[in-house]
Amino acid sequence: MSFADHTIRVRVPGTSANCGPGFDAIGLACTVYNDLELTLKKEAGVKITISGEGAANIPCDGRNIVWRSVQYLLRKAGLLDQYPGAVIHMENNVPLSRGLGSSATAIVAGLKAANVLIGNRFNRRELLQFATDIEGHPDNVAPAIFGGFTVSTVTRGDVECFSFLPKFRMKLIVAVPDFPLSTRKARAVLPAQVPMADAVNNISRASMLVAALCKGNEKFLRNVFDDALHQPYRAKLIPGMYDVFAAARKAGALGANLSGAGPCLIAYALERRHCEEAVGEAMKAAFRQHDVEAKILIMDLDTRGAHIVK
Amino acid sequence: MSFADHTIRVRVPGTSANCGPGFDAIGLACTVYNDLELTLKKEAGVKITISGEGAANIPCDGRNIVWRSVQYLLRKAGLLDQYPGAVIHMENNVPLSRGLGSSATAIVAGLKAANVLIGNRFNRRELLQFATDIEGHPDNVAPAIFGGFTVSTVTRGDVECFSFLPKFRMKLIVAVPDFPLSTRKARAVLPAQVPMADAVNNISRASMLVAALCKGNEKFLRNVFDDALHQPYRAKLIPGMYDVFAAARKAGALGANLSGAGPCLIAYALERRHCEEAVGEAMKAAFRQHDVEAKILIMDLDTRGAHIVK
Repeated sequence: MSFADHTIRVRVPGTSANCGPGFDAIGLACTVYNDLELTLKKEAGVKITISGEGAANIPCDGRNIVWRSVQYLLRKAGLLDQYPGAVIHMENNVPLSRGLGSSATAIVAGLKAANVLIGNRFNRRELLQFATDIEGHPDNVAPAIFGGFTVSTVTRGDVECFSFLPKFRMKLIVAVPDFPLSTRKARAVLPAQVPMADAVNNISRASMLVAALCKGNEKFLRNVFDDALHQPYRAKLIPGMYDVFAAARKAGALGANLSGAGPCLIAYALERRHCEEAVGEAMKAAFRQHDVEAKILIMDLDTRGAHIVK
Repeated sequence: MSFADHTIRVRVPGTSANCGPGFDAIGLACTVYNDLELTLKKEAGVKITISGEGAANIPCDGRNIVWRSVQYLLRKAGLLDQYPGAVIHMENNVPLSRGLGSSATAIVAGLKAANVLIGNRFNRRELLQFATDIEGHPDNVAPAIFGGFTVSTVTRGDVECFSFLPKFRMKLIVAVPDFPLSTRKARAVLPAQVPMADAVNNISRASMLVAALCKGNEKFLRNVFDDALHQPYRAKLIPGMYDVFAAARKAGALGANLSGAGPCLIAYALERRHCEEAVGEAMKAAFRQHDVEAKILIMDLDTRGAHIVK
């Protein structure tokens, strides 16, 4: 049986890692998507087209991360020699290099589409391991695969991910500043050693965040989005960061924090409060006070993760 | 109305703080109890009697922590002048200076009993704040007050505690070594700065622990009890600690860790596996390999916290 010349379309959500105190551990998937159409070919050579975000920047040759992820999966399945070529088309809505996991969506899209084409040889847990091995950490690939909120651990290289939905409906408000920030640069400002008290701060808040989301007690969410381990060091890379957080809260958000390594900032609001528009406006205005123009995305939590589109 | 000469009896559970990765954040209450009978007096002078654990060691004068906690609450209520004396009787089952929160039970017992006698002027949240102010941290007083598993945060001095019950029934197996360890000494071995990677280790595992308990997915509990922030430094104070952990796992426990600052070690097992006796035997035997005699307590999670006994 040949898997060549069949075309599959998969949709992968953008993601927001860390969620404040859950540095390198907690993440979520949101309702902004990248789509990938993939066809495997028995003939060598890859044809890659891109529309939307990153169309001008993403390489369309062997360096392309979607294509490399497709090849990674085929290699794991022992099928790389049989399908040396592919036709790839990406339709991207996730902003590039902004802290919404665009590289993770590309990796997950490539793995997922190739896996579906070869008959779902691997389960989601295995895809998570592959994606983490490619990306280097599970923060973004985990929610991109599973959807919802995710907690990930790495134990001697083995990745585990627990995905869950909160008991109340939330709106996610993301301010996307008009400048990119490389994850490498945002990692470089972090110290190798941190005060024990800061570690405890994050352990307690991350645990409380998860407990309050799982059990649906929103009154315990007031103080859980604060972080001491990465945001203080990254603040200098994002003008007005703390002012935007404060503005979001003042407008009704439960809290706000850096999305991944930034520069996007994400605020969380209860759906029934209907304050998401006001929160977005407040974040935009606060950024403008610091001469940063920001686009506002108002989203829901994605509950499906990577999936096939008919 | 006078609150004098009425007698109340309260029961407070022992507690186990940290639960591995949840250093200074997560705790639980277990079914070993200290009872306190309190009578407030209009006449000055306190009469304190103690039976059970610590009967020979606990001071029965103005230094007594139960009595000091009673006075703390009366002062907060503006009633200290009216009730300068008391009769106190304690029946203690929680081992002293072993990492099962005996000092926290004493504080909570004093606060709770006095609060009941004066007509429940304060709610549990306020008692938590008082108890934390007395003890210095919420790790043990939070589960002693609320029962179940607790996650506590401190935000600019304000304590919050989220208490929850896991979705499956657990057995708690505690090995109580035959030597005490002061919390002060166990704190002194901890570094002020820790590697960022160790902080991430604990954030991810504490979050996963809470998620898995709340949602009832025990398969995610395999790797969540490991800690990188305090146990490695305290291991030298407790001969054979890691061997006892390994023995508990091998006998069927989900995991094991230091109870509070030690020297007690606590293992967790699913009730339906009926392995608690075997786990206890294995822990005892592993300790004996290191010339430590240990008593085994097999307990359930306490689900009530501090309460009145008729």
